[in-house]
Amino acid sequence: MGNVRLVLEYDGTAYAGFQIQSGRPTVQEAVERAIHNLTGEDVRIIGAGRTDAGVHATGQVVNFHTSTHHGPSTIMRALNALLPEDIAVVDADEVPPDFHARFSARSREYRYTILNRRAPSPLRRHTALHVPQPLDVEAMQGACTYLIGTHDFASFGGAMRAEGTTVRTVYRAECWRSGDLVLIEMEANAYLSRMVRSIVGTLLKVGLGRWRPDDVAAVLTAAYRQRSAPVAPAHGLCLTRVNY
Amino acid sequence: MGNVRLVLEYDGTAYAGFQIQSGRPTVQEAVERAIHNLTGEDVRIIGAGRTDAGVHATGQVVNFHTSTHHGPSTIMRALNALLPEDIAVVDADEVPPDFHARFSARSREYRYTILNRRAPSPLRRHTALHVPQPLDVEAMQGACTYLIGTHDFASFGGAMRAEGTTVRTVYRAECWRSGDLVLIEMEANAYLSRMVRSIVGTLLKVGLGRWRPDDVAAVLTAAYRQRSAPVAPAHGLCLTRVNY
Repeated sequence: MGNVRLVLEYDGTAYAGFQIQSGRPTVQEAVERAIHNLTGEDVRIIGAGRTDAGVHATGQVVNFHTSTHHGPSTIMRALNALLPEDIAVVDADEVPPDFHARFSARSREYRYTILNRRAPSPLRRHTALHVPQPLDVEAMQGACTYLIGTHDFASFGGAMRAEGTTVRTVYRAECWRSGDLVLIEMEANAYLSRMVRSIVGTLLKVGLGRWRPDDVAAVLTAAYRQRSAPVAPAHGLCLTRVNY
Repeated sequence: MGNVRLVLEYDGTAYAGFQIQSGRPTVQEAVERAIHNLTGEDVRIIGAGRTDAGVHATGQVVNFHTSTHHGPSTIMRALNALLPEDIAVVDADEVPPDFHARFSARSREYRYTILNRRAPSPLRRHTALHVPQPLDVEAMQGACTYLIGTHDFASFGGAMRAEGTTVRTVYRAECWRSGDLVLIEMEANAYLSRMVRSIVGTLLKVGLGRWRPDDVAAVLTAAYRQRSAPVAPAHGLCLTRVNY
């Protein structure tokens, strides 16, 4: 085969995140084990996004190099038979040798789902954050507009400074209501650690009327982690798409 | 208070159905226990629909008689704190003394969700039936039209003859595609045991091209259980609404 790209969907509830950690269940480890069971090879997969513990994906992209004789369609079907039921391959194809799921990616899209009604939802309990207080979605959408563009997102990132720049480019940041749900979608070239959840935590302050939309501009300008709100819980977040 | 009506949402995955069975976890038992913990009373709740093991609900309706001094809004909040996270009260109100969740109901609505794409979906694995083969939704919708009206549904019912008539009235039966999903919705005055899942099993035969839409009319006319297809699995089914 050569270089294989897989698109993964997973329910992150049971995992300590995408990236391998010794002694804890990770998506990467489960997929590498399934590939080993299929091909006999010890491959290392490269993921486009390092989703945190409890974060889901419908469009995570990974690639790996293999010398298996199976074609992409067989690989997809076989891996789905070998993977646990909370991880699935939803697409597979062969890509040029230099395709790298992380470095080749132009942008990543995330969606955060909030259930905004008085009662919790058993059927959405693993995929939506329950916020019983009414949210001012218009104010949240107003706050989103300050995020678009190239900024220093240090206020919204974990301890990433050591790794280099905290400047990222946000192409799209939107918030809207759909029935009982409030949805937040972002597309950026890349993200700081926990950046989307930090932004969602800040947007929630705005939605609850504790901050004004333009306070978000001030937090962004401060470029200082302590200024933003606590991060929103992981289970509302989903990596929906990676663009190349 | 008097007579209280609750609207329940539940994830039926962990339950042996709505109705109490000794030694097995049921939704009824969990709700009655929560009411007991709140009021100290041993109440018997009446449910509008006896959902089977693994079937979900977003709009199950129950009622119970109580002498608690708590109002409906407090009852709802308190029960949601006491219930397991796979059951929630999404609405509560006081109703006239003669309101009976089952006998007062005019109709019940169910939705069956099919994931119709090659790959399974981890995030929908408990709430949608995965059918990888392409489905002819137009043929399925054509078959639905034969079901509407007052018919003897004996072909689509469990062993219910002993209980009396197998005649039921279907007000609405629809099938449509929405992205990767194929949705089937029905509204009827009442249902025979496993009737919706039996109908869905039959519609799947049509969708897969094994039966023609008008074969469904023949099955219906036969009024004989052995004629219909195997019942579809429980986890795709959801009781969405009860009308009074």
